[in-house]
Amino acid sequence: MPGLSLVCDFCGRVFPVSENRVLCECGGLLHVEAARASVSWETLRSRRFRLWRYRELIPLPPGTPIVSLDEGGSPLVQATRLSEELKVNVMVKLEGSNPTGSFKDRGMTVAASMAKFLGAKALIAASTGNTAASMSAYARRAGMIPVVLIPSGKIAEGKLGQLRLYGAVIVEVEGGFDEAMGAVLEYSVRGGDAYTVNSINPWRIEGQKTAAFEVADEAGAPGWVAVPVGNGGNIYSIWKGFKELKELDLIDELPRMLGVQAEGAAPIAKAYTTKVYEPIKEPKTIASAIRIGNPVHWKRVLNTVRESGGSIVSVSDEEIIWAQRTLARLEGLGVESSSAVTLAGLKKAINGKLVDKNEKIVLIATGNALKEPQTMNLHETATLKIPTLKIADTTILSEILKSITKFESPEHF
Amino acid sequence: MPGLSLVCDFCGRVFPVSENRVLCECGGLLHVEAARASVSWETLRSRRFRLWRYRELIPLPPGTPIVSLDEGGSPLVQATRLSEELKVNVMVKLEGSNPTGSFKDRGMTVAASMAKFLGAKALIAASTGNTAASMSAYARRAGMIPVVLIPSGKIAEGKLGQLRLYGAVIVEVEGGFDEAMGAVLEYSVRGGDAYTVNSINPWRIEGQKTAAFEVADEAGAPGWVAVPVGNGGNIYSIWKGFKELKELDLIDELPRMLGVQAEGAAPIAKAYTTKVYEPIKEPKTIASAIRIGNPVHWKRVLNTVRESGGSIVSVSDEEIIWAQRTLARLEGLGVESSSAVTLAGLKKAINGKLVDKNEKIVLIATGNALKEPQTMNLHETATLKIPTLKIADTTILSEILKSITKFESPEHF
Repeated sequence: MPGLSLVCDFCGRVFPVSENRVLCECGGLLHVEAARASVSWETLRSRRFRLWRYRELIPLPPGTPIVSLDEGGSPLVQATRLSEELKVNVMVKLEGSNPTGSFKDRGMTVAASMAKFLGAKALIAASTGNTAASMSAYARRAGMIPVVLIPSGKIAEGKLGQLRLYGAVIVEVEGGFDEAMGAVLEYSVRGGDAYTVNSINPWRIEGQKTAAFEVADEAGAPGWVAVPVGNGGNIYSIWKGFKELKELDLIDELPRMLGVQAEGAAPIAKAYTTKVYEPIKEPKTIASAIRIGNPVHWKRVLNTVRESGGSIVSVSDEEIIWAQRTLARLEGLGVESSSAVTLAGLKKAINGKLVDKNEKIVLIATGNALKEPQTMNLHETATLKIPTLKIADTTILSEILKSITKFESPEHF
Repeated sequence: MPGLSLVCDFCGRVFPVSENRVLCECGGLLHVEAARASVSWETLRSRRFRLWRYRELIPLPPGTPIVSLDEGGSPLVQATRLSEELKVNVMVKLEGSNPTGSFKDRGMTVAASMAKFLGAKALIAASTGNTAASMSAYARRAGMIPVVLIPSGKIAEGKLGQLRLYGAVIVEVEGGFDEAMGAVLEYSVRGGDAYTVNSINPWRIEGQKTAAFEVADEAGAPGWVAVPVGNGGNIYSIWKGFKELKELDLIDELPRMLGVQAEGAAPIAKAYTTKVYEPIKEPKTIASAIRIGNPVHWKRVLNTVRESGGSIVSVSDEEIIWAQRTLARLEGLGVESSSAVTLAGLKKAINGKLVDKNEKIVLIATGNALKEPQTMNLHETATLKIPTLKIADTTILSEILKSITKFESPEHF
């Protein structure tokens, strides 16, 4: 493929894209190198507001069949009350509107298309979360078999719903998550009928960067973009997206990137301060989608933060729950706990004088609140028991309305 | 408001829209009467592909503040394999991509805007399902208090997640769902600080009809549109939407409407055959969102079906589960069980020679699969236990891939 190859971040070795490969022989991460396309906003905006509007900017071998569920084009909602409270201009990008309920679908449409190009018969990933759900849907869309490797006996039942619905083959591997992931990695080095779509997959990055395109498309380049950081692929992708737009003269300024980790799973935020990266053996946080102790993309995240003049912070579970409730009750936005970290991180950044007054900030809300039934149930609300209401009793309702202000949460800020 | 009023379906009485009222004094349903606007596809298509693209066609009093979560613009996905199997052209409209995961958001953005216009302090509904979730989000978006009336002690915990997240005030009413609904109805007749957004609300219809606009906008008027029928408001709304487009010369032909009920909750489908309408005391079906024994809009649904030259059928829980699995595993589409009824109904209509070969059919998938964690878990999948995979073991994966075809579901059709 002229002008299209896979290149190792670490040793610089180059591989043809026709090879079923997602890691370098040296173990280093691969990235896609492509001849830069030229395209105008006018051309892009003449198409439906969905991910593939940006097709010139998503490199794939010519003739690759696109495996799509009409992903992308997610809402970018103005958070008016939050903006007033925080004295900045906050917008929230609701990635939970994607087909399987998270941003993972952006990368998966590209990776599944690539798998189709390679003639793979199955998609494979070690995951039980949003990646596995997305992978399963796109595998089915492509007529391939979804295969999920998980640590034997360590997965909560509630996590398996989407996998069951899409009929993923679940392979329980003895050992922990590291062993399951190790198995996938070994397999990806060797190639085969299955195509690996874990975080290391370089084509997923090319899909995930489109979140930046959509933000710029609708609202220009903001001052800051806040992104939850688990494995770190998303903040790296979104930063890549903005840089590409700048190179193409489609935006004038670059945003600063604010990475947000959960306190119990914050090896990158810690390394940013201490200059020493240490994986965390037993990561702990309520935000399960970013509960990762040894992020694959940790170096890329540190580069992103430094290059963009941004920062990376960590927030506690208490702050995460506060942020999730605040987004829901102040703005009507239902996001999963791992997405809510962005608001908690923004508040921290404002308190730390990182973010200026009236700056424009986009929070990337990576997943839908519906992904976590248990977490939604953690939130308290008022329950009143009353006798059956008859016509004469409607005064009771008026009384209720008068009295329920006390159940409101004035302690938002 | 010149050219805008509420009119009773039954007695024809006219009410001003400035009154907090959702039912006629005679108990009849109200509908919105508005001077017909004129607009071109060119104007409509110059805007973002979202619900409010169609603003000229959504009647509201001038100056009404719009309460929006960027709803609408849901995907319309081609179901290629299904189409091949069924020998018709099937497209699926994924309403689960809406902000709270169901089509209810279409009506709620209009009803909540109307509540704002009326100066209401709370939105109120008797519901624990998609209506209550949507109402809660839009109430919060509008800065109002969501109040949900439910039968005391009869609601499954799992249904309350979104209500807890958005902080709805939950009022437990002694008695059953009828008593809770009765209380809301009484309250709506009397008016007050709360605005009723149950199925009877006439403004929700004006929002829900936009699903028809979007279908026609993207794919013209199909031969058939299949819609799940619970209370019946949605099929009536969508039919209204198509009729309005025809009156405006924006489409040439009208589709036929296929209503689909669940067998254990099918009073309208039964009345269509027997010519006698009888409510069902204890409706039973796995499809909880359409588990309704005495649908508010039953007459409107029968009119819709007759007027459009369509039909209304019922399907069993077994057929519903089959349809949900088939949409997921053949097309990668995750929809809730109440949405899957449309595919089961389509199959029945094809078998009954109602639908011709190669006709274009749109299935309205009203809600996201994520709404029903328990139902997703009903689906079987293959689970294999293997020892930790080392490099040498990757042949095991090849073996797995060879053998898993037996876990596939060849009994799709």
